[in-house]
Amino acid sequence: MNRSELVNRIRSTKSFLCVGLDTDPDKLPAALKGKKDAVLAFNKAIIDATAPYCVAYKINTAFYEAYGVKGWEIMEATKAHIPATHFTIADAKRGDIGNTSSQYAKAFFDTLGFDAVTVAPYMGADSVRPFLEHKNKWTIVLGLTSNSGAADFELQKMGDELLYEKVMRTVRSWGSPENLMFVVGATQADSFVNIRRLLPDHFFLVPGVGAQGGSLSEIAQKARNKETGLLVNASRAVIFASSGDDYVEAAALAAKNYQIEMSSFI
Amino acid sequence: MNRSELVNRIRSTKSFLCVGLDTDPDKLPAALKGKKDAVLAFNKAIIDATAPYCVAYKINTAFYEAYGVKGWEIMEATKAHIPATHFTIADAKRGDIGNTSSQYAKAFFDTLGFDAVTVAPYMGADSVRPFLEHKNKWTIVLGLTSNSGAADFELQKMGDELLYEKVMRTVRSWGSPENLMFVVGATQADSFVNIRRLLPDHFFLVPGVGAQGGSLSEIAQKARNKETGLLVNASRAVIFASSGDDYVEAAALAAKNYQIEMSSFI
Repeated sequence: MNRSELVNRIRSTKSFLCVGLDTDPDKLPAALKGKKDAVLAFNKAIIDATAPYCVAYKINTAFYEAYGVKGWEIMEATKAHIPATHFTIADAKRGDIGNTSSQYAKAFFDTLGFDAVTVAPYMGADSVRPFLEHKNKWTIVLGLTSNSGAADFELQKMGDELLYEKVMRTVRSWGSPENLMFVVGATQADSFVNIRRLLPDHFFLVPGVGAQGGSLSEIAQKARNKETGLLVNASRAVIFASSGDDYVEAAALAAKNYQIEMSSFI
Repeated sequence: MNRSELVNRIRSTKSFLCVGLDTDPDKLPAALKGKKDAVLAFNKAIIDATAPYCVAYKINTAFYEAYGVKGWEIMEATKAHIPATHFTIADAKRGDIGNTSSQYAKAFFDTLGFDAVTVAPYMGADSVRPFLEHKNKWTIVLGLTSNSGAADFELQKMGDELLYEKVMRTVRSWGSPENLMFVVGATQADSFVNIRRLLPDHFFLVPGVGAQGGSLSEIAQKARNKETGLLVNASRAVIFASSGDDYVEAAALAAKNYQIEMSSFI
């Protein structure tokens, strides 16, 4: 999916919600727990219920890899169930030397067919560029993350700026707003005005709303641009909105409530 | 495998060689190319031939993920074929917020049964600690990598030190030399003396010998400690030593040559 298709989708859905499929089998509703293919059945039901209210799905690879081959089968089947109308993100946080990053890009763009993959910047240009070389695909590089550990390195001074600013300023020259996004955690609202100044045109993938405590309205006010420029992700707050028999309706309602709030910013 | 078992293994084998199973199907010898289960057959033959000369195997997850579910099946079967006498590393370069890193740790330590996994430090403490919490397992954090992109961030000044020094100095307090190693690229030989001073007791996983051009003897001279403290990895230089029918013998000979050179340093 290219940028104008994504922007059009945001405008027609009046939503910039990304639903995160961090499907922890231990948290499945009682009705599904322990059943064969419970995770896939859950994911399909959640996708069907939330699709009208979101523009993207993010699959957190860790929750599938934890179950080995079976987990990868479920990840592939889940990806295949996402409608072609929706932007798909492999939240994989990969990155390695060039010949290895090329293999990761092949895994997520070609074999699994995702639109985007998240990439860690620590190893520099040749670890990121192989992802950017894929046409009509997106590389989403970690900028300032939502977790407390962001303070350890990302928020440390490097010369006149902070490490995450150095990363964003350097990485932006490797791609364009047509194929490169950045992860900016929703819990980092104080930094959003500054980050939007540094990157006026790029999309940001914003995790950390919901369970991690970030505020949607604050982010929207501080960080959207004229094409919105935001994909705000909610995982647990949507998919595990209820652990009862009403889990499908509860997920749909949680996604709808985000969509309603988002519509006022589009 | 704990530290004293690893050290004993290095002493009895007189080797600190790690063989990297970066098995690119496009580079398989002609005799195997295109055959069913060629990658697994190749890996098994390489493991059997090189086991007497090395103490560890490193599986580069990218080369398996590139083939989706089938690739993960081959990765699991390859891991299962490695003798219990050998230290096993998932070169996965993972790292995410705490609840997600916990899932990655589960994937590589519990489900796949590796002794160690490589981890990217960018996201800080809560992205690394879930790996360190696993008993008798090892976390190998990226320090100074072997690729040209190391210059972009790792080798940039952060206060009075370089980013990679800040990372090593910070991360070492999260674990101990009993459960924490660092990646230091073989191409960074100028920095080895300084890094060993910073971390006198830790093991370093050293990729970049062979295809990437690092010098084994220079690293051994500058960076070994009294328990060796090094696992030097060679991937392409061993496993693709020959593309002819003699690929097994050529891999064994390449590994044996490293072992002979290493024995003089133990």
